[in-house]
Parts: sequence; structure tokens; C-alpha cells
Amino acid sequence: MEFSLKNEVVASFALYATLVVLKVMLMSAITAFYRVTTKTFINEEDVSAFGSSTQAKGKPSTAHHPNIERVRRAHLNDIENVFAFVLIGILYLLTNPSVDTATLHFKVFAGARFGHTIAYLIPIPQPSRFLLCATGWVATASMAFTILSTVIM
Amino acid sequence: MEFSLKNEVVASFALYATLVVLKVMLMSAITAFYRVTTKTFINEEDVSAFGSSTQAKGKPSTAHHPNIERVRRAHLNDIENVFAFVLIGILYLLTNPSVDTATLHFKVFAGARFGHTIAYLIPIPQPSRFLLCATGWVATASMAFTILSTVIM
Amino acid sequence: MEFSLKNEVVASFALYATLVVLKVMLMSAITAFYRVTTKTFINEEDVSAFGSSTQAKGKPSTAHHPNIERVRRAHLNDIENVFAFVLIGILYLLTNPSVDTATLHFKVFAGARFGHTIAYLIPIPQPSRFLLCATGWVATASMAFTILSTVIM
Repeated sequence: MEFSLKNEVVASFALYATLVVLKVMLMSAITAFYRVTTKTFINEEDVSAFGSSTQAKGKPSTAHHPNIERVRRAHLNDIENVFAFVLIGILYLLTNPSVDTATLHFKVFAGARFGHTIAYLIPIPQPSRFLLCATGWVATASMAFTILSTVIM
Repeated sequence: MEFSLKNEVVASFALYATLVVLKVMLMSAITAFYRVTTKTFINEEDVSAFGSSTQAKGKPSTAHHPNIERVRRAHLNDIENVFAFVLIGILYLLTNPSVDTATLHFKVFAGARFGHTIAYLIPIPQPSRFLLCATGWVATASMAFTILSTVIM
Repeated sequence: MEFSLKNEVVASFALYATLVVLKVMLMSAITAFYRVTTKTFINEEDVSAFGSSTQAKGKPSTAHHPNIERVRRAHLNDIENVFAFVLIGILYLLTNPSVDTATLHFKVFAGARFGHTIAYLIPIPQPSRFLLCATGWVATASMAFTILSTVIM
């Protein structure tokens, strides 16, 4: 296995892994945007600097804005699933998968996670979000089992 | 350092890293199982689709089931510790550790984390969970200090 | 690209990535220290073993100590940002960046995150924490766009 972008599997992984991590990072930006526009902060120093929708300046805020909590849940779900995918993916490259099999895993995972975020934030009625989350989970688990069978055999 | 499964250290890392990440992924499945069986959901669209133990359909649920919150805390602790281990582990491979030293680190970490999950979910009286968490932490820290001393020396 | 510590870019990444992950791991230790010294626990078995500031032994605690919640928020922000940096950083190494450009990214990110933790825990008035978080975010995003442009071109 050549760990280089000249290796088509590595280049494919680099592309999809970067896209999904960027998507996770976008959640931080969305959270910050909602916090500032709705003036909903948890830290006293944030309320002091940026104001508060519910309380006098300088007082601690316990406000929970439903949109922000929703973004936060989607963000945490991303961390649980996307970071696991990238970590497993790096080890999966060592198993010398074929370009087609590997890229299929990466595309299915990336598609499922972009769909998951859209389904969570709109929100789209269940079980769409559940199925998208499960699809990404199965793609990562499939890569993990490939690693295990390669190492153990 | 050959970054390949033919390298015994890399193969050992791939095995234990995959096992602990799969264990983290199992927590998502346990959470989903508990949410569905106890009908405890946070999102309105989940209540609409799957029902609620405490509220009328379509109303937001704020129910917190103690078993689910426990799994969630164990899951978050996993993310903090297991993902750090895999990231440090990849860099640790670059220090050309001996197979014995490296595998000892990987085995101790994996054993401590499987023990931690069992201790958290049963739960087993403290300080068992604390000591298991600390053991995994020290294994990762030991690998991190090996990297630092190799790079700086 | 030689994935070895003899490669100056890889050695630089190993140094800064290890330092920031160790910093994340330090947050676990700070949380444990605060929980024990303030006797603030969430799990019943912790209260049974270590006591409680607010409740009789063996009863579930719902106490939220503001210092602990602050450390936890800083910790979660670390996980969102530091783990994304290390994952993107590994892929970024594949783009064969110059030592100067790469080390600049790593130093800016590490400096911003150490500053972020200090700004969060003291706390330093806003917008210092916001700007430090944004700086680290931009460093990671810049590496991510380098990967995308290398793979797609």
C-alpha cells in the first residue's frame, strides 16, 4: 500500500474524509451564527460582550434555544460518527481495498452524513434521519470488519 | 517505519484501534435501542414517528431516562479517550516502537476501555470505573510522551 | 511523501498534534480534580464512594458546579476542533506541503487552542475566546482546502 495521493484509493479517501470533516466544522459556524443572532449564550462573559435575549447584561444565562440545541445534537452525532469513520478509514487503507469497493464505502458514508444533517436541521420526518444515520454506521462497520478480517486471517 | 499490515506493530495497532472504535460505535446502537424501547426522545419528529412514554404525540419531549443518560455519559467519555488514543497511536507508530512495548500499550488501553464500559453500564462500585479510565489515560499519555521525546531529542 | 519522522513536516506535525491532544486529555484530569474537590458527581455510585456536597450518600446527584460545566464546555469545544485538526492534518501531510507553510499552520492552530483554553477557564472577556476559536478553525479549514485543491486538480 502506497500512502500517497498518487494511490487512487488514498486520494478518494482524502477527498471524502475532508468533505465530511469540513461538514462537521460547519456545525460550529452554524452554532456560533445562531448564538449571536438569537443572543443565546451559556457563559457570562459572552452575555457581557454580545448581549442576551432573556437576561440583564452580565448575568449568567441558562437559555436554551431549540434551534441551537438541535444543531448541537446534530454536531455531537457527527463527532460520534464522522470521526470514527475517518479513524477507521485510515486503517482501512492498509487493507489494500479495490478502488471501487473503497470509494463505494466513502461515497455511501459521505452521502448518508450530508443527508443526516439536512434531515436533522430541517427537520424531515422520521425514520429518514434514523435510516441515514444507520447507513453511515453500517458503512463504517463494514470497513472495520474488513480490517479485522485482514489482520486476523 | 513501514506503514503496512506486514509491519507487526501496525497490524497490532490496527487490531486494537478497530476494536475500541467498534466499541464506541456500539454505544450509538445501545442508545438507539434504549430510546426506542423506552420511547424516550428529544426531537419532536422522533416522538411523532415512534411515540412517547410521557407526552402526547407531536409535543416536544424533555424526558431524560436515567439508563440513556448513563449510556450517553459513557459514550462521551469514550469519545474523549478512545479517539485521542487512536490519533496518538497513529503518530506513535512513527517512533518505531518495539512490538512488545507497543502491543502492551494497545492491550492495556483496550482492556481498560472495555472494562470502563462494563463498569459504567452495570454499574460496578467506584473506584473501579475511575481506575479503569485512569489506566487508559496513562497508556495514551505514555505513547504521547514517547512521541514528544522522539521528536524533540 | 515519506511518512516518517525523518520527514521534517511529519515531525513538526507529530510534535504539535501530540501537544494539542495532550492538552485535550488534560481537560479530563481537570474535570476529575474539580469533581473530587467539590464533591460534585452525576452518578450514584460516585456519590456513594466519594461523597456529595449537596445530598445524602447513595442518592443521585443533579448538582451542576459552574466551574465543572465550564471545563466540560471547553473540553467539548476541544474535541470538536482539535480532533478535526489532527484528522485533517494527517491527510494534509499527503499534499507535500513546504515545511514553512505546514509548520505555520500547526503553530497557529496549537497557539490558538492553548490560548482558547486559557481564555475559557480564566475567563478572559470576549471576543478573545471567540477570535482564538475562529483562528484555530481557519487554520484547519485552510489545510482542508489545500487537500481538496490537491486531490481535485
